[in-house]
Amino acid sequence: MEKVVKKVGINCDMGEGFGRWKMGPDEELIKYIDYANIACGFHAGDPTTMLKTIRLAKKHGVKIGAHPGLQDLLGFGRRKIEIDPEDMYAMILYQVGSLKAMLDAEGIPLNHIKPHGELFFYMQRDLTIMDAVLRACAVFGVPVFGSKGTKSQGEMCEKYGLIFVEEAYVDLEYSKARSLLSVRESKPATVGDIYRRTISIGLQDEVTDNEGAVFQIGFGGKPFLFCIHSDMPTALDNIQACRKGVDEINATRGW
Amino acid sequence: MEKVVKKVGINCDMGEGFGRWKMGPDEELIKYIDYANIACGFHAGDPTTMLKTIRLAKKHGVKIGAHPGLQDLLGFGRRKIEIDPEDMYAMILYQVGSLKAMLDAEGIPLNHIKPHGELFFYMQRDLTIMDAVLRACAVFGVPVFGSKGTKSQGEMCEKYGLIFVEEAYVDLEYSKARSLLSVRESKPATVGDIYRRTISIGLQDEVTDNEGAVFQIGFGGKPFLFCIHSDMPTALDNIQACRKGVDEINATRGW
Amino acid sequence: MEKVVKKVGINCDMGEGFGRWKMGPDEELIKYIDYANIACGFHAGDPTTMLKTIRLAKKHGVKIGAHPGLQDLLGFGRRKIEIDPEDMYAMILYQVGSLKAMLDAEGIPLNHIKPHGELFFYMQRDLTIMDAVLRACAVFGVPVFGSKGTKSQGEMCEKYGLIFVEEAYVDLEYSKARSLLSVRESKPATVGDIYRRTISIGLQDEVTDNEGAVFQIGFGGKPFLFCIHSDMPTALDNIQACRKGVDEINATRGW
Amino acid sequence: MEKVVKKVGINCDMGEGFGRWKMGPDEELIKYIDYANIACGFHAGDPTTMLKTIRLAKKHGVKIGAHPGLQDLLGFGRRKIEIDPEDMYAMILYQVGSLKAMLDAEGIPLNHIKPHGELFFYMQRDLTIMDAVLRACAVFGVPVFGSKGTKSQGEMCEKYGLIFVEEAYVDLEYSKARSLLSVRESKPATVGDIYRRTISIGLQDEVTDNEGAVFQIGFGGKPFLFCIHSDMPTALDNIQACRKGVDEINATRGW
Repeated sequence: MEKVVKKVGINCDMGEGFGRWKMGPDEELIKYIDYANIACGFHAGDPTTMLKTIRLAKKHGVKIGAHPGLQDLLGFGRRKIEIDPEDMYAMILYQVGSLKAMLDAEGIPLNHIKPHGELFFYMQRDLTIMDAVLRACAVFGVPVFGSKGTKSQGEMCEKYGLIFVEEAYVDLEYSKARSLLSVRESKPATVGDIYRRTISIGLQDEVTDNEGAVFQIGFGGKPFLFCIHSDMPTALDNIQACRKGVDEINATRGW
Repeated sequence: MEKVVKKVGINCDMGEGFGRWKMGPDEELIKYIDYANIACGFHAGDPTTMLKTIRLAKKHGVKIGAHPGLQDLLGFGRRKIEIDPEDMYAMILYQVGSLKAMLDAEGIPLNHIKPHGELFFYMQRDLTIMDAVLRACAVFGVPVFGSKGTKSQGEMCEKYGLIFVEEAYVDLEYSKARSLLSVRESKPATVGDIYRRTISIGLQDEVTDNEGAVFQIGFGGKPFLFCIHSDMPTALDNIQACRKGVDEINATRGW
Repeated sequence: MEKVVKKVGINCDMGEGFGRWKMGPDEELIKYIDYANIACGFHAGDPTTMLKTIRLAKKHGVKIGAHPGLQDLLGFGRRKIEIDPEDMYAMILYQVGSLKAMLDAEGIPLNHIKPHGELFFYMQRDLTIMDAVLRACAVFGVPVFGSKGTKSQGEMCEKYGLIFVEEAYVDLEYSKARSLLSVRESKPATVGDIYRRTISIGLQDEVTDNEGAVFQIGFGGKPFLFCIHSDMPTALDNIQACRKGVDEINATRGW
Repeated sequence: MEKVVKKVGINCDMGEGFGRWKMGPDEELIKYIDYANIACGFHAGDPTTMLKTIRLAKKHGVKIGAHPGLQDLLGFGRRKIEIDPEDMYAMILYQVGSLKAMLDAEGIPLNHIKPHGELFFYMQRDLTIMDAVLRACAVFGVPVFGSKGTKSQGEMCEKYGLIFVEEAYVDLEYSKARSLLSVRESKPATVGDIYRRTISIGLQDEVTDNEGAVFQIGFGGKPFLFCIHSDMPTALDNIQACRKGVDEINATRGW
C-alpha cells in the first residue's frame, strides 16, 4: 500500500448531482482534497456532470477515482437492492468504463475505485457480491478505496491482485463496537471535533468512541486516507479542519 | 478504408433488448454476420445484455462495435431530442466507454462505433452534433460505420483522423431521390429482393429505386458493408439471403 | 366476495411491454379472459401502452384492474428492493392513480388492484409493507386480487374495508408444501395439465402437487379466479385450455 | 375566469426535487403563496416528494395544481423532445392522475393544471400538442394556468370547456417585443424591481420592458396570477416582495 498512498490524504465523493440538481459544494471542496471519487451515473451523476467534475479535479491537481453505486437515483444508492452477482459484475464494468473513457479523453489516469454507500455494505454482507465487484475492479487494475473491511475483503483483494486502501472517517462517530455510526446516529461534529480526531488518528492511531473510550484504529503508523462527506451542510468547514490536521500529520511524519 | 474492411461484410444491431425484453433473435442472426453493433444502454441494452452479447459475438468470431444512441429507452432512440453538443460529447464517451470496459474484460478490441437511429440523423442535420460525436469517437480511434453521409461528414472524419465505413441497406427501398425509405415507407422485401439487391450492389455497384430506375451506389468496386435490420420479423430470412449474396461477391472479387 | 366475483373467471397481466418492447401476445389473450391487470409503468408499461391496453380490454368487454409493481424496469419488478413503507404508500397511489385517470378518460371504472411479482411477495414478508399497500388500495376502494395469502392479509384487508379475491394458478405446479413453485422450478404444463387442473380446482376444490399427492385448495365451492401467465411462450394455448375449463365449471355450477 | 381566481394571487412550482436532491426552499416559500404547482415525476418529483409537498401545501392552506412536464429528469423538462400527440395525451393523463390520487388520499381537490417549461412552449409551437394536452386536462375539468398564450390557446380551451388563467412574471424582464426573457437573458431583479413590477401590473396593468418602455399587459382590471420562480437563489426574497405587492393590490381593489 505504501506505493499507492505515500502521505495521509483526503478523499471526497464528487459529482453527486444529477442534471440541474446539485449535492455538495464541489467547487469549494475540491481545493482541500487529494482524491475525488466521481459518481458514474447509477446512484448519482450523469455524463456531463462527470466530465465537468473530471475537469474540475484536473484543474486542481486532484487524483480521480470511479465511484460506482447501485442503480438507484431515487434512493441515492442507499437502498438495498438484490442483484445477481453476474449483473453486478457487468454493472461495475459499465460504470467504471464510462468514467475511464472520459479520463482517457482528458489524458488523465484512473487512480482508484471506491464503491458507494449500499454497494460497499452489500460487498461486506455478501461474498458473491464482493467477488463480483472486485473481479470487475481487477479489469482496471487500480486500488480499491473503502472503510476497513472484513478479513474476506483482504483475502479477495489478494486473489485478484488488488490493493485495498483503508479510510478513516472523522465527521461521524465510532460506536463502542468500533464501527462507524450513520449520519443519523452520530452527534454532529464541530470543526474542533474533526481537527482533534484527525490528529488523534494520524499521530496516535487512536480514536475516541461515542461513549468516551479510546481505541486503536490500527493503521500502524502507515499512510492511509481520510474520507469527508461532501453532502453534509457543514462539509466545507469539516474539510478545512481535516485538511489542517492532515497537513500537520504529514509534516510531523516527514511524509 | 481498405485496411479496415477487406471484404464485403454484414453488420447488424445486437443486444437491443432491455432487462427481460428482447428485440431481435440475436442467437440466430449472429451466425450470419461479420460485425455486431452492440447497444450501450441509452436507447436499448443494459450491462448484463451488453456482456452476454459480447460473449455471443466472441464465440462466433464476430467483430464488435459500440452502438451508442440517444438517451431514450421509451422511444428506442428514434425520437428527436435536443441535446447540447457538450452533453452529446460526454454521452458518447460514456456509452462507448462502458462497452469498451467489457471488451477489455473479455480481451477483445473495440472494432468500430456505429451511431444509432436518430443519433445518426441528428449528426447529418446538425454539424455541431456531428462534431461532438466524431470528437468523442476520436478518443477511441476506431472507424465509424454509417450510411453514406454528407460531404461534411467526410471532412469532419478527416479532421479527427477517423475512417468512415459506408454501408448499404437491402431490406429497405431507396427512393427516387436515392435516399433510403423508412421501414413504414418501404414495400416489404422478399428474400429474393434481398439477394438480388445484394448481388447488384456488390457486383454492379447499382441498385433499383422504388420506381424501377437503376442508379449507382458509388462504392467504386471497393469493399463496403451491408447492414441488415435485426428487429424486422423476417430478420433471419433476410440475413441468410444477404449472406448468400455476400459470400458470392467476395468469391467473385477474390476478396 | 360473492358480490365481486360471481363466476369463476380468468385474470391475466397485460400491457407489460415498454416502448417498442412487447411481453405477451395481449391482442390474442384478451379474447379469453375476464379481467386484465394492467402494468402502471414501474415494473413495465408506459403511458401509451397503458392507454392502448385499456382500449383493447374495453373493446373486448374485459374488466380492468391496476397492476402496480416495484420501480424496477430492469428487473421487471422481480428483484427485492428495500422500500420505506411511506415511500411504498406513495408509489402505489402514484401508479394506480395514473391508470385511474386513463380509465376516467375512457369512461370505465377501476375494477381491482393486483400487486405484481415481488411487490406481492414483499407484502407477504413484511407487514409494514402490506399495511402501506393496502392503505393505498383503500383510497380507491376496489377489491385486491392475489394468491391465497396469510391470515394477516385477511385481517388487514378487513381493517381497511377491502375485499380480497383469491386466485389459483394452473400453469405452474404446487409443491408438497402446497405453495406455488416458480416458473423455473415447475415442470412445463401441457394444455392437458392445464385443463385438468382447472376442472379439478373448480369442481373438486382439489389440486395435485408435484409429487402426485392431492390436496384441497380451500375455495369452498365459492367463485374465485384463475390467473394465467401472459409471458410464457405457451400462454395462448394455456389460456384457451383454462378458458374451456372455466366455461364448463360455470355451466356446471349454474354461475 | 372570475369564478376561478377572485383575487390577485401567487403561484409557484413546488416539489421539484428528486429523491435526495432538492430544488427550491419549498418550506419557506409556501408561506407566501396561494397556489402550488406540484411536479409529477416526469421533469422532477417522485411519489414521496409529491405526497410530502401536498401535505405541506395542505398545512398552509395553499391550493394545489398538477405540474406535468416532459419525461426528462436529466434536462429538468427544458429540452425539446419530439413526442407523438397521442403519447403526449397519455403522458398528461398519467402525471395528473398520479397527483390526483394523492390528493384524493388527502381529501383535497385538484385545483388546476400548469404545464411545465418546455411542455408549455411545445404547446404554443405545435397545435397538435396543445390539443393533446388540453384534451387530457379536460378529463380533470380544472382550469389551466399559464402565461398569456396565443389566440389558438384560447379557442382550444373553449373547445374543451377549459378555463385558462393567465399569469404575469415579475422576476424576469419583458423584451421590447413584449415577450418574457429567459433567466439567462434577464437582468437579475432586485426586490425593489419585483415590488414595483407587481404593483404596476396589478394597479396600472402596465409593465416596463428591458429598454425602459412601458406597455400594457392586458389583464383589464380583472384578477390574475403572478408566478414566482422557486429555483432562483433569491426566490425567498422575491416572493416576499411580490406578496407585499399582491396584498396591497387586493386591498386597494377590494378583492
